[in-house]
Amino acid sequence: MQATFLRKVSNPVERADTILTGGIVVTMNQQFEVILDGAVVIRDERIIAVGPSDEISKTYTADKVVSCQGQYVIPGLVNAHTHISMTLLRGLADDLRLDVWLMGYVMPTEHEFVNPEFCRLGAKLACAEMIRSGITSFADMYYYEADVAAATVEAGMRGVLGQTILKFPAPDAETYEDSLAYTEKFIQEWKDHPLITPALAPHAPYSTTNDLLRRCGDMARKYDVPVLIHIAETKLEVEDSEKEFGMRVVPRVQATDLLNAKVLAAHCVHIDSREMDMIHQHETTVAHCPTSNLKLASGIAPITQMLERGLTVGIGTDGPASNNDLDMMEEVRLAAILAKTAANNPTAVPAKQALLMATRQGAAALFMEDKTGSLEPGKLADVITIDANPVHNIPQFQRDPDLVYSRIVYASKATDVRHVLVNGKWLMQDRQLLTLNEAELIEQAADYAKKVDAFLAAREGDILSKLLAIGGLEQEESFEVQVKAEIPDASIIDKLLQHPDVHLLRHVHYRQYDTYFMFDDPDQGRVRYREDDLIDEDGEVQSVRSRLTFTKPTKERDFNSTVLLSRSQFISSADRPLRFYREYFQPASERELHKDRLRWHVHYQGVLFYVNIDRVTQPAQVQTFIEIKSRTWSASDAEYKADRIQEMLSILEVTRQAAIQQDYLELNAPTV
Amino acid sequence: MQATFLRKVSNPVERADTILTGGIVVTMNQQFEVILDGAVVIRDERIIAVGPSDEISKTYTADKVVSCQGQYVIPGLVNAHTHISMTLLRGLADDLRLDVWLMGYVMPTEHEFVNPEFCRLGAKLACAEMIRSGITSFADMYYYEADVAAATVEAGMRGVLGQTILKFPAPDAETYEDSLAYTEKFIQEWKDHPLITPALAPHAPYSTTNDLLRRCGDMARKYDVPVLIHIAETKLEVEDSEKEFGMRVVPRVQATDLLNAKVLAAHCVHIDSREMDMIHQHETTVAHCPTSNLKLASGIAPITQMLERGLTVGIGTDGPASNNDLDMMEEVRLAAILAKTAANNPTAVPAKQALLMATRQGAAALFMEDKTGSLEPGKLADVITIDANPVHNIPQFQRDPDLVYSRIVYASKATDVRHVLVNGKWLMQDRQLLTLNEAELIEQAADYAKKVDAFLAAREGDILSKLLAIGGLEQEESFEVQVKAEIPDASIIDKLLQHPDVHLLRHVHYRQYDTYFMFDDPDQGRVRYREDDLIDEDGEVQSVRSRLTFTKPTKERDFNSTVLLSRSQFISSADRPLRFYREYFQPASERELHKDRLRWHVHYQGVLFYVNIDRVTQPAQVQTFIEIKSRTWSASDAEYKADRIQEMLSILEVTRQAAIQQDYLELNAPTV
Repeated sequence: MQATFLRKVSNPVERADTILTGGIVVTMNQQFEVILDGAVVIRDERIIAVGPSDEISKTYTADKVVSCQGQYVIPGLVNAHTHISMTLLRGLADDLRLDVWLMGYVMPTEHEFVNPEFCRLGAKLACAEMIRSGITSFADMYYYEADVAAATVEAGMRGVLGQTILKFPAPDAETYEDSLAYTEKFIQEWKDHPLITPALAPHAPYSTTNDLLRRCGDMARKYDVPVLIHIAETKLEVEDSEKEFGMRVVPRVQATDLLNAKVLAAHCVHIDSREMDMIHQHETTVAHCPTSNLKLASGIAPITQMLERGLTVGIGTDGPASNNDLDMMEEVRLAAILAKTAANNPTAVPAKQALLMATRQGAAALFMEDKTGSLEPGKLADVITIDANPVHNIPQFQRDPDLVYSRIVYASKATDVRHVLVNGKWLMQDRQLLTLNEAELIEQAADYAKKVDAFLAAREGDILSKLLAIGGLEQEESFEVQVKAEIPDASIIDKLLQHPDVHLLRHVHYRQYDTYFMFDDPDQGRVRYREDDLIDEDGEVQSVRSRLTFTKPTKERDFNSTVLLSRSQFISSADRPLRFYREYFQPASERELHKDRLRWHVHYQGVLFYVNIDRVTQPAQVQTFIEIKSRTWSASDAEYKADRIQEMLSILEVTRQAAIQQDYLELNAPTV
Repeated sequence: MQATFLRKVSNPVERADTILTGGIVVTMNQQFEVILDGAVVIRDERIIAVGPSDEISKTYTADKVVSCQGQYVIPGLVNAHTHISMTLLRGLADDLRLDVWLMGYVMPTEHEFVNPEFCRLGAKLACAEMIRSGITSFADMYYYEADVAAATVEAGMRGVLGQTILKFPAPDAETYEDSLAYTEKFIQEWKDHPLITPALAPHAPYSTTNDLLRRCGDMARKYDVPVLIHIAETKLEVEDSEKEFGMRVVPRVQATDLLNAKVLAAHCVHIDSREMDMIHQHETTVAHCPTSNLKLASGIAPITQMLERGLTVGIGTDGPASNNDLDMMEEVRLAAILAKTAANNPTAVPAKQALLMATRQGAAALFMEDKTGSLEPGKLADVITIDANPVHNIPQFQRDPDLVYSRIVYASKATDVRHVLVNGKWLMQDRQLLTLNEAELIEQAADYAKKVDAFLAAREGDILSKLLAIGGLEQEESFEVQVKAEIPDASIIDKLLQHPDVHLLRHVHYRQYDTYFMFDDPDQGRVRYREDDLIDEDGEVQSVRSRLTFTKPTKERDFNSTVLLSRSQFISSADRPLRFYREYFQPASERELHKDRLRWHVHYQGVLFYVNIDRVTQPAQVQTFIEIKSRTWSASDAEYKADRIQEMLSILEVTRQAAIQQDYLELNAPTV
């Protein structure tokens, strides 16, 4: 309880810029010192002294001496994970399954609206809300982070800003090569700013490739900047990782060498003890987001075990579209109480530890414990005060100084925050924001909401919306590289299978019964209901599955005149009868197409290709066709695979002239 | 979306008292009507019309027409479970095990401080906080509920007030007979008050007896008042109920006929599907308290299953000593998001359903859905407004009227509540409390806190505190009826065992090695460390257990000169060596006492008695003693059991003169 760190000064009275005096100073330093009548002295951007008010007043003077009587004076809160520009999407849609929410509402809206102006406005709105809730530093992941940085500097906050990189096209990049180029420029431009730490944000292991992760790690080490990433947020993510990579999420990421950079991993809901050890060993830090994890039904992160192992765990609000606010006081409280039930132990994560996670340990999670997170001479002056005596937080027992933590964590509200300073600069005084024009921001946000409302209302008649409304949507196939050609007969496949560079993985035989729903407006795309009968060696039906595919008409790119790239294809399993879908979608017309498909899964030059030999049986056709397909994510990868397909066509001795651009439906179009 | 319930009036303009106009009216009626520019008309204590503002303005005038533009107008929130006077104990101690918190801090403080004045002040403080958070009705359980009622009426709130009844002595009653008498008088006095519904509150099945529960049910049916009770809050409670009654908690309560009264069961964290059906069938209602359940590590109540079965579930903050506030906005939000992770389904308990639980369904849980919980003509005017456009809750999407629920539940804060009316009367306007003097209450609370601090500080040197500090305290033995007498030899027991009314349950043989720690101040009580060696038929040690017992010197009552009642005895298992406890407690002196104990567990006249025949072996004594003991809870029960002990002494042919009042330590006191 004794302030041991009053700085010795040579002259009897030293000048400072600001003295916060007379408050209950909760330092959150290594000794957890609490000074019941204490003062914090600030000069330029730094704290220069902390001690009892009466001693400070003998040593320091300042133009601005602010009484903080009846207030807690604590380090500014650190929001370890968020997506601040998404304030503009707050409350857009809620209580939905993640896929419906994300692909049905958030991603289409982002695709339409996210641009530099959107990101700046959303970021400023978020800064206003965060300052009000006592946050002084945050780690952000979104698009156009250079604009987020400009908004953050305008607000006067401290940000670790991670530019999002995805294997899919993003609102600010067609390919991840574009994102990496943007990110490198962003890092170079902002690297030395006093408030901004630029960072890379490969979105998540499931939405990136190993190559992408490896390149992010390389760039992070080159510039010594952090990497922000979502890790093991859902159980499904772990199962998919095990299926696809034969490993859980953390080892898969570790195998790309990414963890040798300074990585802040958000969520970590589904990591096991071996993964915790791996994270610990690499000094990877964790952002715990309890509200978002509960609301999206992701689960409860095992933070008690993480803390016991010595992991560095901060607390994050996550984005305002999934929380739905940026209230760190609420988040800290939830982190503390949720941990108790998760650990079946009411003494787990006591208030003091929770507040530590939101301050000094949060700063450590953002790799800036040397700069902020506690009230100590030499640290940057990121300080907030909180009213100690609102009616919802009285009385105050003084018996045990540690009770102060429980009062702050369990009963203080964001709206009790009174003053906020970052880097020595006042951002809020007596609940008045000093750097942002809140009324103007609110008005601009209302304009955006109107536009988004209009966009979504116009879409209500959409086929995709209807598909989403009945749920079960599984994935978006972003890019597909494909060639189709007419061939003399199925035996041609032997040339490919006997080639030394081609490795057969699997062979199957299907009979496919397709029903296409067509709509009056061709821009609406079409829905295909497919019954896939798997045929065994005796020609009998072995199993049947039904799937629904929605294809939007989109521009296709042509590589070497033969290879097509298609996009915006949504697939779901069809667990209801064809009749249901016919009634539900009410198509303007329908088409039937049945075919016999022999399919080979092959590896060629290290790439997985699907080779189909198809015969259309209804409306019956005499021709036989070959299709070679592969999934792809980036433009350069697509070009590489297109070249491999050309080589395979050569092995098959299929000429360019045989290539066909139409799909089977067009080939079979009734002639008018 | 159309307001269908505008009341038809004969004269073109009808007078009212208050019109709230121009707000977004969220009625929470059966049709969930939302009126984007709506008005609520109030006359006397009732809502007389709800409809679009322009239509209302044509039909009604009032002296007080208040514009609610930019506000949601919703039914007042219903807090379905709390202990409001405990505001004065908020933050007293946190992050402790339930037993340490309850028996080490809360109960001793309550025993010292709880009186009518304490309950009134605590209740008024709580009302101030609840009004600020938009609560208009609540269900309370505590002591001196007549004083809580007076405070509630002063605040102008609506309360279902349950007088607590325990098998232990309570701050306002020595026995449960006293509590029942107090409760009956309380019910008679308050039964017809427009704001107050008096109720019985048998604390919980584990802290009551079957007789007590049966008598509560009888009284509740006699006066047609509700019963408030804690049910299945912890897993331990269920295990104990199974051990003691061979039944889970709900069937045990059902067997006492209590569920045939109007019962509101708080918590219900650990009830199975059969218990849910039992609750449903008896129209018992449930109060879900998510914050308290998480914070005390009790678990997560299965509310999704309850709601699916059609149970009536309200939401409660629980008391401010275990929450630590009375913020219903926070509680509703947590109920919604926690249910999603518990049910592993992000669409579980959507915002609309959560708000319903906090309004109309909450009112139904309090058995007053006919009176309050929705904005409908004819209902009592319990109405609040909430600012719709603070920076943490923008923008507003209008696309889907149901988004209004997600905005209120997921992003509104208690501090956004602007106006509060109960029974047509204004309790808060523009965040100014109109019925309570907040500053005065805060000051009085601070005085209490000082006294409590002093009391607990003085106790810090206490043995009990030290015992609590090392945890593991198991139970408080409240009353014990006991007789001790010198007997010629052990064979006397045969007279008892051969008696037709005595049934032997179990016989054991112990050697007991006791070490007593004595302290300078005899008021401090003493600590006994006992090693119990269980001896088998061959005279070999079969098993060993160690226990710590703390006994406070308390007044003992004498029935028929022979029977003693002792109290304040705390027992814990002793999992550390004697050396540890010696160093830890630093006793002023120590005493050793070894004895040989033959023990019989017998049933006599339906009561379980322990009969011991003891020989003190060190310091060696020649006498043989008999002890007959039983646990008891109420004064009348103690008298009944004392009489049975007298009869057993007669069977044993032990005279009153042989009875001894000293304990073995006193009998063996060294003569000075």
